Amino acid sequence: MNPSPKLTSRLNRQWRIAARPDGLVKESDFVWREEAVPALQDGQILVRNVYLSLDPTNRVWMNDADTYLPKLPLGAVMRGVTIAVVEESRHPEFRAGDIVQGLCGWQEYSVESGAGLVKLPRIPGLSLTAFFGAMGHIGFTSYFGLLDIGQPKEGETLVVSAAAGAVGSIAGQIGKIKGCRVVGIAGSDDKCQWITSELGFDAAINYKKENVLDALNHHCPNGIDIDFENVGGNILEAVIQNLNLHGRIVLCGMISQYNQAVPSGPRNFANLIAKRGLVKGFIVFDYAARYNEAAAEIIRWLSEGKLKYRVDMIEGLRNAPTALNRLFEGANTGKLLVRVSEEPS
Amino acid sequence: MNPSPKLTSRLNRQWRIAARPDGLVKESDFVWREEAVPALQDGQILVRNVYLSLDPTNRVWMNDADTYLPKLPLGAVMRGVTIAVVEESRHPEFRAGDIVQGLCGWQEYSVESGAGLVKLPRIPGLSLTAFFGAMGHIGFTSYFGLLDIGQPKEGETLVVSAAAGAVGSIAGQIGKIKGCRVVGIAGSDDKCQWITSELGFDAAINYKKENVLDALNHHCPNGIDIDFENVGGNILEAVIQNLNLHGRIVLCGMISQYNQAVPSGPRNFANLIAKRGLVKGFIVFDYAARYNEAAAEIIRWLSEGKLKYRVDMIEGLRNAPTALNRLFEGANTGKLLVRVSEEPS
Repeated sequence: MNPSPKLTSRLNRQWRIAARPDGLVKESDFVWREEAVPALQDGQILVRNVYLSLDPTNRVWMNDADTYLPKLPLGAVMRGVTIAVVEESRHPEFRAGDIVQGLCGWQEYSVESGAGLVKLPRIPGLSLTAFFGAMGHIGFTSYFGLLDIGQPKEGETLVVSAAAGAVGSIAGQIGKIKGCRVVGIAGSDDKCQWITSELGFDAAINYKKENVLDALNHHCPNGIDIDFENVGGNILEAVIQNLNLHGRIVLCGMISQYNQAVPSGPRNFANLIAKRGLVKGFIVFDYAARYNEAAAEIIRWLSEGKLKYRVDMIEGLRNAPTALNRLFEGANTGKLLVRVSEEPS
Repeated sequence: MNPSPKLTSRLNRQWRIAARPDGLVKESDFVWREEAVPALQDGQILVRNVYLSLDPTNRVWMNDADTYLPKLPLGAVMRGVTIAVVEESRHPEFRAGDIVQGLCGWQEYSVESGAGLVKLPRIPGLSLTAFFGAMGHIGFTSYFGLLDIGQPKEGETLVVSAAAGAVGSIAGQIGKIKGCRVVGIAGSDDKCQWITSELGFDAAINYKKENVLDALNHHCPNGIDIDFENVGGNILEAVIQNLNLHGRIVLCGMISQYNQAVPSGPRNFANLIAKRGLVKGFIVFDYAARYNEAAAEIIRWLSEGKLKYRVDMIEGLRNAPTALNRLFEGANTGKLLVRVSEEPS
């Protein structure tokens, strides 16, 4: 048995996972805990979470199954990606005041070993939210998924589902930068307005109002060369129906399926044979060795005004469980974040 | 209007498509026609079909939809790949006695322009059936699908569905040549016996008797790295469930789906994200520029006894329509052929 850690007088508030959700999460699937922050041992760092990223994959992490990460045991602090500031360090590579990103969880403070933490630079004029809105696991997912798997060529047609979401909105804009015709699928007129007027998408489809198959036919007169897929289900089927020869499906997410007890696969899957289609699943972590390359390009595009992001900010960790459902209800536009504490000046 | 072609006294018997099939084909979906062979014009060739290949894709060609080839109009001679002998030629590149392969249809004779015809070499000791059993559109499908998309590495686990079929039996053997553990899925004990005892597969699963998911767990203790998919449906789902990180699904066919009014997609499709899975559809014609490379290797493997094929020979063109269903009923082992006329000596 390990000796009990020394405790400080500082209080750490947390959400721990209490139950496996059935469909949408309920606040009762979590339990709110307040406990003292342990004192640091050698090699440890105490971080204070500033922003917590809420992502569709969080819902998958709550299931009773291993995925690309081991399943979370009941009672554990809910897993979450955060941007945090180092408050104290007994680790040679970190200093108080450093800004880091990592899996520091749904809590105010976290004691970390340094493993998996990435130090973030402070860039004049750039809020820390940019590291979630346009870089980090969001922007890099868009960047590597579109460029490495999608292989966009000038003049090709790119379809992006969940196009007003964090990843989709960036993926579509990178598609425009690369010279594609970009058609986004989103769930409200406001979202469609945002991606066409502000982000420069060529067309948008409101899947709640329009027949997606007909609308894709209309807006993609030359068919679909690349699909950046975040949704799955009927929307994926409509895309496969319009896929061009040698089309590429960047399989990033299937948010329509994560709350389904019995998910459905694309019924026209066999169409991929005739079309020589490619489907490739990926996880951004696989590209960690190339994050710097992506960050440099994205920071340049941000500074040139070619890339924009929007943050949907939830105030206070207390609201994280109910806020998570905004993703599945399509309530957010852009990157959904929780402000856990104040950004250091 | 074209002038009516001159006719010879030679009679050409044909199967023409008369109706769009509903599920399995019926003989009444075709009509038997006998007509005189037209006399040749300059630039034309008259070929006599020797072997007609029956393939699952023939069923797809009968639907009222374009696929990788244009749809067949009702009343047209049924499309089919044949090996044929040139009987007369008014084309500078073909001579009487040449052996050719092409889309010469479900008929005894065909007048061809030469486009799409491939001349076959006569190889001592090798029956012309080898060009359908181990090369041609069958062997090359196995070869390029497995090697180009599957990218097998020594020690990896390869699963092949419809493993006692024409393409599957060759794909599995090439997997063995490349050092994989090869597990075949087939529909009878006899087929399972054939692929393990004669073809050297490491294990076989009789999907009509065994739970495929459990059997894959048992026979693939290290998971599945490559799936050579010919079947789709529940079998594909069981494979996806066991797919390793960075697994590759060579999407060659989905025979379980071709007779379905409403096909089903793999419900666990989202598993491809976590596993970074690759799915790639393909058609052998795309590799035409590399056929010679494949033929040279396959002929070598045949001569070394490393590659074997079996022919399920149907006697007489008259029996082609009913024979086609053997593919969907799993009645054939190896390559299903129709002997239309005698192989030249």
